[in-house]
Amino acid sequence: MEMWFTEKQTEHFGITARITKTLHSEQTDFQQLDVVETAEFGNMLLLDGMVMTTEKDEFVYHEMMAHVPLAAHPEPKHVLVVGGGDGGVIREVLKHPSVEAATLVEIDGQVVKYSKKYLPAIAGALEDPRVDVQVADGFMHIAESESAYDVIMVDSTEPVGPAVKLFEKGFYEGIHRALKDDGIFVAQTDNPWFHADLLRTVYNDVKEIFPHTDVYTANIPTYPSGLWTFTIGSKQYKPKEVHRRRAEELDTHYYTADIHEAAFALPAFVQRGLERKEG
Amino acid sequence: MEMWFTEKQTEHFGITARITKTLHSEQTDFQQLDVVETAEFGNMLLLDGMVMTTEKDEFVYHEMMAHVPLAAHPEPKHVLVVGGGDGGVIREVLKHPSVEAATLVEIDGQVVKYSKKYLPAIAGALEDPRVDVQVADGFMHIAESESAYDVIMVDSTEPVGPAVKLFEKGFYEGIHRALKDDGIFVAQTDNPWFHADLLRTVYNDVKEIFPHTDVYTANIPTYPSGLWTFTIGSKQYKPKEVHRRRAEELDTHYYTADIHEAAFALPAFVQRGLERKEG
Repeated sequence: MEMWFTEKQTEHFGITARITKTLHSEQTDFQQLDVVETAEFGNMLLLDGMVMTTEKDEFVYHEMMAHVPLAAHPEPKHVLVVGGGDGGVIREVLKHPSVEAATLVEIDGQVVKYSKKYLPAIAGALEDPRVDVQVADGFMHIAESESAYDVIMVDSTEPVGPAVKLFEKGFYEGIHRALKDDGIFVAQTDNPWFHADLLRTVYNDVKEIFPHTDVYTANIPTYPSGLWTFTIGSKQYKPKEVHRRRAEELDTHYYTADIHEAAFALPAFVQRGLERKEG
Repeated sequence: MEMWFTEKQTEHFGITARITKTLHSEQTDFQQLDVVETAEFGNMLLLDGMVMTTEKDEFVYHEMMAHVPLAAHPEPKHVLVVGGGDGGVIREVLKHPSVEAATLVEIDGQVVKYSKKYLPAIAGALEDPRVDVQVADGFMHIAESESAYDVIMVDSTEPVGPAVKLFEKGFYEGIHRALKDDGIFVAQTDNPWFHADLLRTVYNDVKEIFPHTDVYTANIPTYPSGLWTFTIGSKQYKPKEVHRRRAEELDTHYYTADIHEAAFALPAFVQRGLERKEG
């Protein structure tokens, strides 16, 4: 029997991948969690039927979420990752020698557990002594933090289920308070082909809070449209300005100092989408 | 009944789109040609079961194939498009005021015919008086041309069926002869996720013929992996150097002068793939 998984990325369009083995499947307290082995992308983690990460292309998302804010900051020491229970962003964070402590606040402990079991090359970094893994509500953690972090990364799912609160303006105000005076934060903000409204809303909310707000992109084959966006807000440093020497010392598969700068060049329709008036 | 079309982009991975109407289907002298109406991407042209272009995302491929070489050239007057029977590249070529004549050599007249019928916003440009549409073999046309063109664009299908010859080194040597002394050419060279070998072979073949050879990328949702590559060879001008004022005057949805420059920044794994030794 041939088994194919299909994710409808919109009502009318999707991707389909041949599954060679189903490894785990459960309804956690927060979401449907599946891990499957695919022929094309290796092991794949799904939450509520949506691809979160795969062994073959995970490096793009994780590198681009971590290295852009970290290489824009002169000396990041304390880093927070909200969500990201698979550990991929943490793995990239730890590549920066200046980082002394990285906190991961993931609401769903089962994501951490099964990532460690089936995605060890991604989740292995969670065992590092510099890492503090907390199974807790990231929204609450942010609300309780003040001037605590140099860099905060919001590695959330789509704004459905437990992640809805992570796309609201109050959350970004909390992040501003949780950051030090020269802090930087980044959030994944979906794709501009099918969810231009979400991107515009987040961008304009963040822009009202952070003096330096930008959007950058990366190509991720298993994510809707293949064009993913990240919205970055910074209190002091310009996100596009990369500490080139530090960036070039990183061991990466996607990110480079040139990619750092180039990722901020937005296609015309994406740029116009950010500036369009709402309603 | 719900009808879904699936393109297996690799043996184990594909995209799937809901079809609201089948508009045309035939086996031409060269390939299987289908035009369908999809709910997500509008009308879609398929050759041998592979998505060639859709109304929703066609602008990316057509703009990025046309404007990068044209805006790198100081004054392109005579342009040749090999393949591209849907007319999309020609439409973009005609946006450059310096262009006096554009020749399209498409081997399959049925592609031109049904693009005009079902993709009028793309193929309409073929009626422009500056355009000479020839239903003929592009390989032969190149072999018979000498110092004839400022810019040549190879808008081919994948290297199967009639397009196999368009990925061979002898063809690029012919292009070199067909170009004027300061000519530039570009070819679509598939994606680096599933076809890194093809890209590397073409890049290295072109590099042996043209003093300035580069690869640039664009995001195309309906093409495999979403990350498409173009290989550009130039006799004199550096492809990345854009005539900024001219670029900024173009009416585009994807291409900008900043995108022109940024598109040449390659992800680390793509750059390494080009440099890897064969065999």
